[in-house]
Amino acid sequence: MSERVFNFCAGPAALPLPVLEEAQRDLLALPGVGMSVMEISHRSKWFDEILGEAEANLRELLGLGDDHAVAFVQGGGQMQFSMVPINFLAADASADYVVTGSWSRKAAPEADKEGAARVVWTGEEHNYDRVPTDAELELDPEASYLYFTSNETIQGVQFEEPPAADVALVCDASSDFLSRPLDLSRYGVYYACAQKNAGPAGLSVVILRRDFLERRKTGLHSMLDYGKHVEAGSRLNTPPTFAIYLFLLITRWLKGPMGGLAAVEEFNREKAALLYDVIDASPDFFLGHALRDCRSTMNVTFRLPSDELDQRFLAEAEQNGLFQLKGHRSVGGIRASIYNAMPRDGVVALRDFMVDFRDRS
Amino acid sequence: MSERVFNFCAGPAALPLPVLEEAQRDLLALPGVGMSVMEISHRSKWFDEILGEAEANLRELLGLGDDHAVAFVQGGGQMQFSMVPINFLAADASADYVVTGSWSRKAAPEADKEGAARVVWTGEEHNYDRVPTDAELELDPEASYLYFTSNETIQGVQFEEPPAADVALVCDASSDFLSRPLDLSRYGVYYACAQKNAGPAGLSVVILRRDFLERRKTGLHSMLDYGKHVEAGSRLNTPPTFAIYLFLLITRWLKGPMGGLAAVEEFNREKAALLYDVIDASPDFFLGHALRDCRSTMNVTFRLPSDELDQRFLAEAEQNGLFQLKGHRSVGGIRASIYNAMPRDGVVALRDFMVDFRDRS
Repeated sequence: MSERVFNFCAGPAALPLPVLEEAQRDLLALPGVGMSVMEISHRSKWFDEILGEAEANLRELLGLGDDHAVAFVQGGGQMQFSMVPINFLAADASADYVVTGSWSRKAAPEADKEGAARVVWTGEEHNYDRVPTDAELELDPEASYLYFTSNETIQGVQFEEPPAADVALVCDASSDFLSRPLDLSRYGVYYACAQKNAGPAGLSVVILRRDFLERRKTGLHSMLDYGKHVEAGSRLNTPPTFAIYLFLLITRWLKGPMGGLAAVEEFNREKAALLYDVIDASPDFFLGHALRDCRSTMNVTFRLPSDELDQRFLAEAEQNGLFQLKGHRSVGGIRASIYNAMPRDGVVALRDFMVDFRDRS
Repeated sequence: MSERVFNFCAGPAALPLPVLEEAQRDLLALPGVGMSVMEISHRSKWFDEILGEAEANLRELLGLGDDHAVAFVQGGGQMQFSMVPINFLAADASADYVVTGSWSRKAAPEADKEGAARVVWTGEEHNYDRVPTDAELELDPEASYLYFTSNETIQGVQFEEPPAADVALVCDASSDFLSRPLDLSRYGVYYACAQKNAGPAGLSVVILRRDFLERRKTGLHSMLDYGKHVEAGSRLNTPPTFAIYLFLLITRWLKGPMGGLAAVEEFNREKAALLYDVIDASPDFFLGHALRDCRSTMNVTFRLPSDELDQRFLAEAEQNGLFQLKGHRSVGGIRASIYNAMPRDGVVALRDFMVDFRDRS
């Protein structure tokens, strides 16, 4: 433990320490099995239990009923950029895309390969510093779906509430998945790659409303067909078994010591406030990227008054055990990713360093 | 160590013990990094080194030059069933498919979704107990490629040499990858999922001949475009970092203590002979599935004279610490998967159990 640092990576991100410790303890042999979780058949009784409990915990955490199906798939968020239109956007149809940052901007062109992706709003002109209000969105009531990204990891802007739309919502929730309670009744597809809040890279969790799933196209390649994954209970082929096992351990940790998603949301809001309060107290020194009412609880983005100060901040942060704070090149500056697994102590350490650095500069 | 059993699973399969031990030791913090390998950015200097050495080791093991590109992708072998024709089979073109077992049989229908998959040979009539001779194959000299499966995991039949063809070969080598040296000059695509010989589930290694890669179609979805993965150095998006790290450790183990692929091949042939010798000595008791000159060095498939004996064999094997020996339901009986990571001691223990079981029955 002593050699571990505080890790603010945007993803693959820090994992809960108790989860890593359990995985480490059992890595050579699951108790009562005598083999590593990486070495057992995905159709064995042992993996049946892992997969079954993982889905049950997810359903309990999000309050999902039988009207939603769950699929564990591979390929990361970007594979979903394509799988969503491959399944749900016909050649003669159109879908509405809200572009609030790097990820939604990348998603729309993939949809254009299937049908028409209509960009109904983009924050490009102001370098994606906010999300739109509902009044700004002129939505197509005939759209196949409305696509948005609940939290833009790179820019640090987040929707407080999903856009108001009459059509089904499709949401990339990769970087705020399981960070707060959510009513998924309006969502046709709600997906997240795991490597921010839910496990290692290589797993994506896709939640599909069953009536929406029925609208998918036919004749799809098997591995690109959400319906086939759902019918096969996420075992159309060998799933990423170790990543699903870690996802299971994380859901246990969320349900148990973390107290469920309402408590997790409060925990995350308090952590984010520790940093935003410093930014707001010195707005000429810490130049926040996102506008105040769109700021992310997951990714806190800011710059210092000069590139030279940014560099000094990053170098001195590492000397203080605070790692992977560099902002993405498209925004620059600093980005502190403080997902569920970031302990309050880590955020306090960063807050104290920010205050000290400011006072010395 | 003492609690580990001998694991004959066809996949996800047993991993080399020294690899698991190193991964366990460093799971909470890579030496000198202070974070788990699962928690570092895929664009960090630390992961640069992991990915770079993994590819360099693979190239060294297989003797690959600049005329071949390497891509680490997700989705398992079945995603490659689709990615191959999505990239290389035009709507008005045809590819030749050799169907020698369950996996090649599943690959052909995915190709039919893009162009025409012409099945040039199938072993279906004899339940896939052999591979064809070159004389049996009437190949199309205009085919976009010739597709085959070098080792059929379920049936236990293996090509000693690839089919003679004038067109580029496309090979699913999932279950005999890195088990022997190979000249890849005739292969347009050579791919394997990792979970048999090369790591945990969730990673596939794709080797592409650069001149063949140039023939791919345009306008593909980014994540389905081999060219985009190659151009991005396998970081088009976040790759499965932990699986790539384990793949790196396995390549180090193959190069170092295992002595390279020529030595590995000898080791595997000797292990397989231990079991086939028992089968050949009692052909009325151990009913081998594959014909003698097509038998796999990786998956040894046989039945006993009755289902009841099969069941007793499996139950008693577990009592002797020999696990996951049940054959696939489409073949039945017993399947002993003895990939690179299966130590000679494990095969000897199974051989001794087979002899003892036969003598008692």
